[in-house]
Order: sequence, then structure tokens, then C-alpha cells
Amino acid sequence: MTAAPNDTFLRALRRESTEHTPVWLMRQAGRYLPEYNATRARAGSFLNLCKNPELACEVTLQPLKRYPLDAAILFSDILTVPDAMGLGLYFADGEGPRFERPVRDEAAVSQLAVPDPNDSLRYVMDAVRTIRGALGGSVPLIGFSGSPFTLACYMVEGGGSDDFRRIKTMLYSRPDLLHRILEVNAQAVAAYLNAQIEAGAQVVMIFDSWGGVLADAAFQEFSLAYTRKVLAGLKRDRVENGQSVRVPTIVFTKGGGLWLESIADSGADAVGVDWTVNLAQARQRIGARCAIQGNLDPMSLMASPDQVRAEARKVLDSYGTPAAGHGHVFNLGHGISQFTPPDNVLALVETVHQHSREMRRRGG
Amino acid sequence: MTAAPNDTFLRALRRESTEHTPVWLMRQAGRYLPEYNATRARAGSFLNLCKNPELACEVTLQPLKRYPLDAAILFSDILTVPDAMGLGLYFADGEGPRFERPVRDEAAVSQLAVPDPNDSLRYVMDAVRTIRGALGGSVPLIGFSGSPFTLACYMVEGGGSDDFRRIKTMLYSRPDLLHRILEVNAQAVAAYLNAQIEAGAQVVMIFDSWGGVLADAAFQEFSLAYTRKVLAGLKRDRVENGQSVRVPTIVFTKGGGLWLESIADSGADAVGVDWTVNLAQARQRIGARCAIQGNLDPMSLMASPDQVRAEARKVLDSYGTPAAGHGHVFNLGHGISQFTPPDNVLALVETVHQHSREMRRRGG
Repeated sequence: MTAAPNDTFLRALRRESTEHTPVWLMRQAGRYLPEYNATRARAGSFLNLCKNPELACEVTLQPLKRYPLDAAILFSDILTVPDAMGLGLYFADGEGPRFERPVRDEAAVSQLAVPDPNDSLRYVMDAVRTIRGALGGSVPLIGFSGSPFTLACYMVEGGGSDDFRRIKTMLYSRPDLLHRILEVNAQAVAAYLNAQIEAGAQVVMIFDSWGGVLADAAFQEFSLAYTRKVLAGLKRDRVENGQSVRVPTIVFTKGGGLWLESIADSGADAVGVDWTVNLAQARQRIGARCAIQGNLDPMSLMASPDQVRAEARKVLDSYGTPAAGHGHVFNLGHGISQFTPPDNVLALVETVHQHSREMRRRGG
Repeated sequence: MTAAPNDTFLRALRRESTEHTPVWLMRQAGRYLPEYNATRARAGSFLNLCKNPELACEVTLQPLKRYPLDAAILFSDILTVPDAMGLGLYFADGEGPRFERPVRDEAAVSQLAVPDPNDSLRYVMDAVRTIRGALGGSVPLIGFSGSPFTLACYMVEGGGSDDFRRIKTMLYSRPDLLHRILEVNAQAVAAYLNAQIEAGAQVVMIFDSWGGVLADAAFQEFSLAYTRKVLAGLKRDRVENGQSVRVPTIVFTKGGGLWLESIADSGADAVGVDWTVNLAQARQRIGARCAIQGNLDPMSLMASPDQVRAEARKVLDSYGTPAAGHGHVFNLGHGISQFTPPDNVLALVETVHQHSREMRRRGG
């Protein structure tokens, strides 16, 4: 990677003017890319891939070789932190992540401790350093973590869930226990993201994948309050080439469209929004509080390239041209589907760049 | 059933004053009740239970014998209409509903036709008549259907889905085909609900269980537009004992909290809301356009009876006392879980009645 440094993404997050709308895609290094599947096959398993910094670097860079994306995102799993807590992460065939030792009672909660990110999560920091080196400043690298609540979902349920019965039973019947888990998680996530920042992550994103399953008041109390604690605990500045550089933060709550104002008030620099949100309305509701990231339906990438281009333009037109104090980062409203035709991603990224430049020229 | 007629539910839907907040629960006749499981075992299968009017009546009445609920809801399946279209509904063991002949191409779409509800869906109308007779006017009977879009999800996917890839691929690449399916579904649902009204249903509810998975603009175009067509095609009045009686309608879009204003403008008498919605804000947003139904998280019923009572009071307090032109029907934000302890439902229903009476006395 020897391209000239592209800081469009960072400028959009700082709500400075940009020549085009930056774009990256959640899960952009993933199963829709044949080269990803080849590397994963070589690694032997998804977890091996996550835990091998060289291979994690390799797959992180794959989409950037195909598409003129404006950011790279660390290839890793959302559940590295509870794994480092000793819960025993594994992947059952075709079943998604599971934990050998879920956290369901007072005894298990009492044993939870904040892992040292430079010890049991050292492989993640090694991957961050390796990727930064390989990127050579071409585009910024995003580090990430699951939110305290989203991690707790997996820790209590022991894996994915349709109804979140176990964690909600704890929430409604033993809120004290859940608060204790979330307190540990918030400290662990802050330490984990700070270590990623020290290792070279230039932006950090908190994925609150499951906050949207909560009732309105419960979301505030059990999810957003702990995301706030993480944000408050972050070192927002890092030293790069002897200069202090601010590290922007992004919070994405899938299904959080009703709570945009309070998420925007959490202290994050940008709020991610899924496709259920009307982007023009979201921009109005958030105002100049922070930037917005989103919000194309990943399934629109299953159509023809021309239809993909049309949908991309609709998202850009819905946001409009960023005014002073506003910022838009184009993204999907969720991870890209493994069934996406790779050529459609090229159509998408090129259209975002071209159409957003055109909008700025027109002053629209 | 020889209790005095209880029309609290109907009055709340008409936004007239009531002495207490009426309450019923989605899926109130269901697997959390041992007597339901006994009847289902006798029937041999869920579909047999739906298709046998005597047994459907029996399970419809079961929760009313345990709890002082303010409404009964027809026991039936959401997929009776596409089954009557000849798609071959079946239930794979532990897998939820599936169709033998999903609708995925132009040829299959061309063959779709509106079924005569008094022919292939006669068993539903027989159940409505049987239940009305058995209720003897004690509480109103709700008829229901899936929304055109929600039916289309199952018809195109061939069953449940995590990502709705097939229907969304059609939506983004062949919107014309999906519109043709939805047009047939809207006519079929209107005819089906009109037949239920003629058979004796006193309220009809449209379940848009999957509208919430759509992108903002797509929801308006592919879900709400067709729900509107159904509502416009309904006979809103029925003759009962020689008198014309208005039949109120309820539209419930799971995950539709961002779109409450437009759903409230659809022509429905009430909008259902799930637990992600702040009820006080929903009331403000909807104003005097229609009544609101909801919105307790079903999982709160997994806690202790005292905790259930506290959560029920929070919902009632959040809505407040209905003013003139407003109406609140207490319900869950989704179907009751099969793991719910039946005693908790009694605690819930009694608390809704007691606390809402108390609120009216206090004038709160």
C-alpha cells in the first residue's frame, strides 16, 4: 500500500469538510470475498484467523486491494474480551459463537475480572501494529469492541439468542447481578480499546449489536449508561510521530433509531444508524452533536450494479451535503452479507465517491 | 361464560372513557398454559388445532377462564391465507412454519389468486362463530391477519428468516414482482378480515410482524401502503342484533417505533407498539389520531410476581391517564413467551386493572 494518505474518513468524523463522502463497510473483510475464504481455509478456523496477527492483517487488507475504501477495520471477533475473561469461546459448526462457561449466577459473576489487554489480548494488539505497518498511512485503521451490554448478552446467554430470555430474566429479576457484569465489562472494554489506541488504532468503534432488543428505559440503564462509561474511560488522544492526535469514536446501536438523541449525547464523535432510520430525519435530530455513519440496507447489494448505484445515491441524497459542523460516513446499516456479489461493492464504493463529489459541486 | 358484558376494550379503542385500562396479551392462548398443551396434544398438531373450530374455540377460551382479560383473540395461525392460496403450509419439527411451494419467480407470482375466505378458509369463520357463541358476549372477540408484507415474507422466503435475503433481493431487484404479490395479498387479507367480521369478529388486528426489518422508504412503499389498502377495503361496520356496530382496527408493526406517525395515519383505530418505544413519547407523537396498544416486554414476565407488578405499573404510569380523545389498551410488545409462569399473568392482569383504576381515582 503506497497510496497517498487518505484522511477523508477522519475529517468527516471531525466534521470538517471533505471532497467526497468517505465509505467503508461493516464486515468488509469477510466471507463474500473468495480471497478471504482462502485465507480462512489456510488458518483452519475463524478463531485461528483472529488470533494470528499476520493472517488477521492479510484479511484486513483484502477489501482495500479491491475497492477504494476510505478506512480499514481491524479483523477480529466481537467476543475476544469475554474469551480473555476465561469463558471459553468456541464456534460450533454453523451455529455461531458459544461460551463453554456462561455467566448465569452470583458465583460466576463474582469470578469475573478485567483482563489485561496486553497479556491475554496481546494477539489483538499485535494485529493492530501489524496492520498499521502494512497500511503505511494509506487509510486510517479502526479498532473496535462490542459494547458492555452486547458482550453481556453472549456471556449470559452462552451464545446467540432469538429472545434474549436469559439475560432479560436476569435484567428483570436480578438487575444487581447484571449491573455487576456490565461494570466489569465497561472497565474491560475501555482498557481493551485504550490498548488498541496505544497499538495504533486511529478510530475506535463500539458495536452495540443487541442494545436494540431492550425496552426503552432498560436500554438507557443497561446499555447506553455503560457505553458512556467506556467513552469516559478512553484516552481520546494518541501520540503519532511526536504529535498528539485525537482518536474519534463511533457508537453503533443496531435498532437504536428511537434513541439517536441520547446516543448522540453519549460523548461519541459519530453515531451509526441502521437502514430503518430516515437519514434526513436522523441528521435533523442529531444536529451538530456528532457525525452520522450509515445507512444502506446490506441486502440492497443483492440487486444489479445499476440498482446498487441507485440505492447508494438515495442514501447520499437523503443525508444531503454536509454543512459546517455536520459529517457523514457512508456505510451499511449492518455487516455485509456473505452472499454479496463482490462486483456490487465496487459499484457501491465508486458511486459513493462520484455522487458525493457531484453533490458538493452542485452545492446540493 | 356468563359474566356481564365487558366492553372496556371496545371503549378504549373508540377512545371513550373507561374505568380501567383494558388488557389482553398477544398469544394469550398458547404454550405457557398446560391446558393448551393438553388440547394441542389431543389435536395431534398445531395445524389440526387451527383447523378444528371446536378445539380452536376451546383454546381461545382457556386464558379467559384463568384471568380477567378484557378481550379474546381468535386462535389461528398467521399463515392461513397463503396456505389457502395453495402454497402448502407445514410445520417442520421445532423449525417453525414452512411452505412447500414458495413464491420466488414470475411464474409463481402469476399463479397467485385471492382465496374465497368462505371456501378454503371456512374453518376460520366456523371458529369465529363458535367462539362468539361460547363467549356469550362476555368480552369482545378479536379477529386477525398477517399484513400483506409479513405474509409475503413467508411466501417468498418459504419460512422464517434471519436476514430476509430472498424477499429483499426481490424488493431491490424485482420490485414489480413484489408489488404484484402484495397487491394479491392486500385483496386477500381484506376479504379474509371482512369474512371474519361477518362471522362475528368485533375487532380486527393486522400483524405486521416483519415490517420492521425494512429500510425506512421501503417500509412505506412495501408494507404500510398495503396495510392501508387492507384498511380501506374493510367493512368497518357490522350488524349485531339489528344494530350497526363499528369494528375497530389495530395495526401492529413490530419494530415500527420510528414510523408511529405514519402508521397512526393509516386509518387504523389503534397502533400497537413494542417495548422499545417510550409510551409517553408515543402518546405525544400519536396525539388524538388513534389509540395505542402495548407495550410491556414479554420477558419481564420471567421475573417474580412483585417485579411483574412493578413493570406493569411503569407501563401504565408512562402512558398516564387517558384524556378525552386518547385510549390505551395494555398488552405485551410481542407474543407471550412459552416459558412464562402462568401465575405471573394473573399478577399482571390484576395489577393493570387495580393500578389503572387507582390512577383514574387519583386523577393522575
